[in-house]
Amino acid sequence: MASQKPTISVAVVGVGLVGSEFTSQLLALPTSPFRLVSLSSSKKTLFSADGLEFPASSASESTWKSALAVSETPFSLDALRASMTALAQPGGAVLVDNTSSETVAASYPSFLRAGIHVITPNKKAASGDLTLYKDILSACADGGTKYLGESTVGAGLPILSTLGDLVGTGDKVEKIEGVFSGTMSYIFNNFSTGQPGGPSFSSVVNVAREKGYTEPHPADDLNGADVARKLTILSRLIPSLRHLLPHGFVSVQTASLIPPALESISTGDEFVKRLPEFDAEFDRLRESADKEGCVLRFVGVVDATSGVVKAELAKYPKTHPFATSLGGSDNIVMFHTARYGARPLIVQGAGAGAGVTAMGVMSDLLKLV
Amino acid sequence: MASQKPTISVAVVGVGLVGSEFTSQLLALPTSPFRLVSLSSSKKTLFSADGLEFPASSASESTWKSALAVSETPFSLDALRASMTALAQPGGAVLVDNTSSETVAASYPSFLRAGIHVITPNKKAASGDLTLYKDILSACADGGTKYLGESTVGAGLPILSTLGDLVGTGDKVEKIEGVFSGTMSYIFNNFSTGQPGGPSFSSVVNVAREKGYTEPHPADDLNGADVARKLTILSRLIPSLRHLLPHGFVSVQTASLIPPALESISTGDEFVKRLPEFDAEFDRLRESADKEGCVLRFVGVVDATSGVVKAELAKYPKTHPFATSLGGSDNIVMFHTARYGARPLIVQGAGAGAGVTAMGVMSDLLKLV
Repeated sequence: MASQKPTISVAVVGVGLVGSEFTSQLLALPTSPFRLVSLSSSKKTLFSADGLEFPASSASESTWKSALAVSETPFSLDALRASMTALAQPGGAVLVDNTSSETVAASYPSFLRAGIHVITPNKKAASGDLTLYKDILSACADGGTKYLGESTVGAGLPILSTLGDLVGTGDKVEKIEGVFSGTMSYIFNNFSTGQPGGPSFSSVVNVAREKGYTEPHPADDLNGADVARKLTILSRLIPSLRHLLPHGFVSVQTASLIPPALESISTGDEFVKRLPEFDAEFDRLRESADKEGCVLRFVGVVDATSGVVKAELAKYPKTHPFATSLGGSDNIVMFHTARYGARPLIVQGAGAGAGVTAMGVMSDLLKLV
Repeated sequence: MASQKPTISVAVVGVGLVGSEFTSQLLALPTSPFRLVSLSSSKKTLFSADGLEFPASSASESTWKSALAVSETPFSLDALRASMTALAQPGGAVLVDNTSSETVAASYPSFLRAGIHVITPNKKAASGDLTLYKDILSACADGGTKYLGESTVGAGLPILSTLGDLVGTGDKVEKIEGVFSGTMSYIFNNFSTGQPGGPSFSSVVNVAREKGYTEPHPADDLNGADVARKLTILSRLIPSLRHLLPHGFVSVQTASLIPPALESISTGDEFVKRLPEFDAEFDRLRESADKEGCVLRFVGVVDATSGVVKAELAKYPKTHPFATSLGGSDNIVMFHTARYGARPLIVQGAGAGAGVTAMGVMSDLLKLV
């Protein structure tokens, strides 16, 4: 029985960990209304309006990676937009941006106005300057298209969709509070367990770095910017806060954990070598929390009532879900709303990793059908 | 500026707590693609193909309730289907069933085949006989329509949508485990706190009944049927379990908490009067759990690996989220999947109440746009 020809054309940009996993998930869908028409790295591109075809019968990752490696077509955002525009009318076209590129993010409005949906785990656009964000929203209206970024916060966890449902159905969001960084979660779940004493801060950061939970330069996690980006994205989905952060994540009140003396250190190796100098300071923070019956967690808070959006190290009682329920490198998010009253709606689970991030991207794609 | 005329016609059946709250939420949407064309109680109906209009400028609950009360048109499912069929073609039509009626549930296939979407918090159809459930699925295919029941499990919590995303994106669901009944949650959160001793089982049930957390006859909660219905609905969304429960919730292994001697007692008052006779038995269960460092929780488990679906009173360590994080009458659900690995995806919050149930219904409605 001949199956109906898939009608929604998909172009994937970025074939790193998330991009590769997403492409595998897409090609593995048993029956699919999607046609993969383009795959691009930062250097090369594959494109076929009729859908890419790979030599092997089952398109494994090595198969399409080899095909991309031997492509002689350099990647160009303008060329991709032109090719995809031609495919937007018959059934629909989608750009899936699996990069973390500012340049690709800045191009979303042009794709959206050309009738091409944009789906991405790339936080740069939605957490950057308000001007770009507003341009994305108006481009969606102009082009009759959708911008979807479920996996920009909490990867595959239903966080943005839940916030969208709360706001869309008329609930009043009072406060969102959570541990939004898997790296920060791992570090403080291990540094501040609720038991007296424990390992030094620098040793926990070192282990996290060795396990690949931190960026190569741990300061890129400890500065809190990733959390501030996620808070920006959440805030913009709450009508009363939409225009609060004009410059995006840099407008968030962020209490960096980088000791001021280490701010200018440019390599990760040098950074972790010097970090033990500050262990006593972190020990004191832990002891002070312990005396109050609390643990330390690096949290993000969007307070819609007071209009405060902040990322900081805070104390939570040892009986609080941030202390009792959280573990590993999980994210946890509490939605305090009028309807949910005294007991918040809570979502918890892995908020990073290629598999679950690609799943968030894929679930956005399935919403287009 | 003239706004575009709303195009999706909505008929609401059932104007109890959830139906009233849903209607209020619908009429309160600031801009809406929906047109409320019909409101029905079990006895009376209002219908206007152009959209119901109420005398007051803001359609408050008392306004539309008064209008319905003075309607002289008796409610008829057949007449409603005929009227809605005529509206299905131009823009779309939806039946929102806010009743818990078996009769209305049995009529879904005829609505779906007539091109009318069905959205409901009514568990009867999806947790009943497999024949009806299959008929609903094939009616959706025949009619090009959707059956959506997010609020049948956990009210407004993102439980079915999360399961749908996991399955739809190709994750392998291994086990779903949770506290699915707000009543059972309240009872055991108060009866088995993790501290030695505590109130008697009958006294906790009595308080729950006085607060309106139980059905008038508490046996209707303690029999576990509500949990079994929810497990049936979840199981049917997992491909390998779709055909497991031929007779729906009655096919679930359910360990009722009703003492056998009280099974035949027909009134709630008589039931709670006799319940203290069995307090010693529940005390022993609590002591036995306590000795093992555990609490008691009435849970539902869908084990996709072994194919077992069961509702029962079980022991959980005092450090488990079902013990530490759960409180009030919250639901909590853990999804154990291949992608989420050792640490499950968790959703927690109020799983009952008119506001959050209506919100789940409304979020389904918004998915149609």
